[in-house]
Order: sequence, then C-alpha cells, then structure tokens
Amino acid sequence: MVSEEIERLITLLSKLPGLGPRSARRAALALIKRKETLMEPLAKSMASAADAIKTCSTCGNVDMTDPCKLCIDPRRDDKLLCVIEDVADLWALERTASYRGRYHILGGTLSALDGVGPEDLNIPKLVQRASIDSVTEVILATNATVDGQTTAHYIADRLAGANVIISGLAHGVPIGGELDYLDDGTLSAALKARRPV
Amino acid sequence: MVSEEIERLITLLSKLPGLGPRSARRAALALIKRKETLMEPLAKSMASAADAIKTCSTCGNVDMTDPCKLCIDPRRDDKLLCVIEDVADLWALERTASYRGRYHILGGTLSALDGVGPEDLNIPKLVQRASIDSVTEVILATNATVDGQTTAHYIADRLAGANVIISGLAHGVPIGGELDYLDDGTLSAALKARRPV
Repeated sequence: MVSEEIERLITLLSKLPGLGPRSARRAALALIKRKETLMEPLAKSMASAADAIKTCSTCGNVDMTDPCKLCIDPRRDDKLLCVIEDVADLWALERTASYRGRYHILGGTLSALDGVGPEDLNIPKLVQRASIDSVTEVILATNATVDGQTTAHYIADRLAGANVIISGLAHGVPIGGELDYLDDGTLSAALKARRPV
Repeated sequence: MVSEEIERLITLLSKLPGLGPRSARRAALALIKRKETLMEPLAKSMASAADAIKTCSTCGNVDMTDPCKLCIDPRRDDKLLCVIEDVADLWALERTASYRGRYHILGGTLSALDGVGPEDLNIPKLVQRASIDSVTEVILATNATVDGQTTAHYIADRLAGANVIISGLAHGVPIGGELDYLDDGTLSAALKARRPV
C-alpha cells in the first residue's frame, strides 16, 4: 500500500540505467528521507537541465549552447576530428585531457540487427565536416566492438574521396593490465603492434 | 568539459544509493537523451513528492497524509502492532499481503557504535501505543542482525509491564533455499523449531 505518488517516483527511477525495481525503491526512500538536501535539489537540477540542455547541431554533443562549447572553443585544433559513438565517449576522452581537437558524435553504430542504417546516424554531416579544408585528420574512435568497427570501416570508405588522413585508436595491453587476464585478440594485436622501447 | 548544469546533475545523482560516479554519469546521459519521456516527468514527480510526502506522526510511515493510510484504514486489525526498523520493511511486509495489522516504524536500531540510543528511535510512542487496550500483540520484526535483535530485546523489556503478547518472526530455511548453502545458525534454528508435517 505504497501511495501513488511514491509508486510513480519508483517507476520512473527504475527506468534509469543501473536501477532495477529493488534499487529504485531504495533510491526513492533515500530521496524521501533526504527531502531538503537531495530530493528538492535534484528535482530542480533536472527541471533546469531539461530546459537548458541542447544538442549541438555541429558535433552532436549535449550542452547549454548550440553550437557547443567544444565546437566554438578557439583553443581547440580544427585540424583534428575525432569520430565517436556517444556523448559518454566524449566525456571519457575529455577526462583524459589528452585530446585537443574537435569531436563528431554519431549517436550510435550501424547495426543490421537493430535496423540502424547510415541515414540514422550523424554521417552525412561528418562527410561534410571532413571535406572542410582545415580538417587534415579524422580519428575513428568508435568502440572496439563488431558494430563499432563495422561503422568505422563504413566511414573510412565514405571518406576515401576526402583529402584527409584516416586513423584509428591503437589496440594493446591496457595500462596496469596483466597479460594472463587479457583476451587473445588484444594480446596478439599488442604483439603485432610492438614498438622499440 | 562537461557543462556545469550536467556536472551538478551527475553529482546529485551519485548521492543515490546504488549509483557511483560512473553509473551516475550513465543515468544523467539517459535522462538527457530521454528529456521529454523521462527527465521532465521525473523532475515533476520528485518536486510534487517532496511537497506532498509527510511522515505519519503515529507510525512513522511516509505517505501523502498524516496519519497515513495504513493508520486510518478501518479494515486493518487494531489488535496487532508490528514493530519494524524502516519504511522499506513496511513495503516488504505489505508486498507479502499476509499481514493485516498496524505498523510501528522505529527509524533505525539501537547502536552503541553509532551513538543511537532509545531516545533517538520512535520507542516512547511505541510504549504508548502498546498500552492502548485494543492492542493485544506486538510483533517484533526488526532485522535478524545483532543491532536488530538487540533493539528487539530492549523493546521486549520496555513492554514487559504492558498487557500484550510479545512475539518475533520465525527463523528457518527460506522457501526455495538449499540446506547446503544455508548458514549454521539458521539451520540449527530451523532444526530446533521443527514442526510436525
């Protein structure tokens, strides 16, 4: 006999990734117990984020402005264009603070099973951006999954005519990784791509 | 270079139980991607829940009204009073649909380590409720942990003078459980409390 209002909150929370029905109930209780310090600020934050967040029409990033901060930042390198699947990948790359070029977010991968074709992804815009004179290199940084690599191959084909270097992320042993726990494919890729120390 | 608005949303989400920094980022992205269908409804649901939810001054339940639905429901049995630690326990018992009495939520357990004494829990109110003539049985359903059982013992002592039966939940083999995986304490309790079939 949970009241409707709480039931509705639990149902909505359980739609978040990583929260099942049980953890959604725990989250709802935590919110109810911390009404002033958590529930109200979170409600406000969500409402204002829902109002303010836009998708960048250039790169597909989410930000308060369109074009996004990364697209208009004059300190970033116009020569490099990094192609990724998702906003989460952009955040991951930005956390490394080792890339200073521009981004292009596809919004997914080609997938015959899920019926995702080139027209469903942000690919025409990518072809257009890659043909701009200032761009000299397109880095294909889709995931190292079958779908991600299929998408990278497709994009490489589409960009064959453009006057740009097309590159991909290196495969190899993760920093801190143990050879014994590594899958065979990664290990053989690391061996093939061995470098003088 | 995540915008401040999104950063704030992630920080707040990561305070929910079960969400760490990484899953909070995933949750934030899921919200941003499903702005109309998830973020806005959830923001509204939280805001209205924060406004409407009250703590029942009789039993400690959370509901839209004070006293709560369970306390004023005339179909429930006034003779039974079930003492539990938390609202989550009330929800768990209500899901079984096998208890039709009233509840009393302590709001935690006695804990010397955390400095929780009887005065920090909803115990004086419990003593008062247990002394009402209509109550004939108090069921101590605190968790089967050291703190839960200590609290149950303390309450049993406090209620010794009141004219009520004091009972506790049965211990035993969980339905569907395998003996081999059961801890020794539960198994020996199940053996001691064996019943004719």
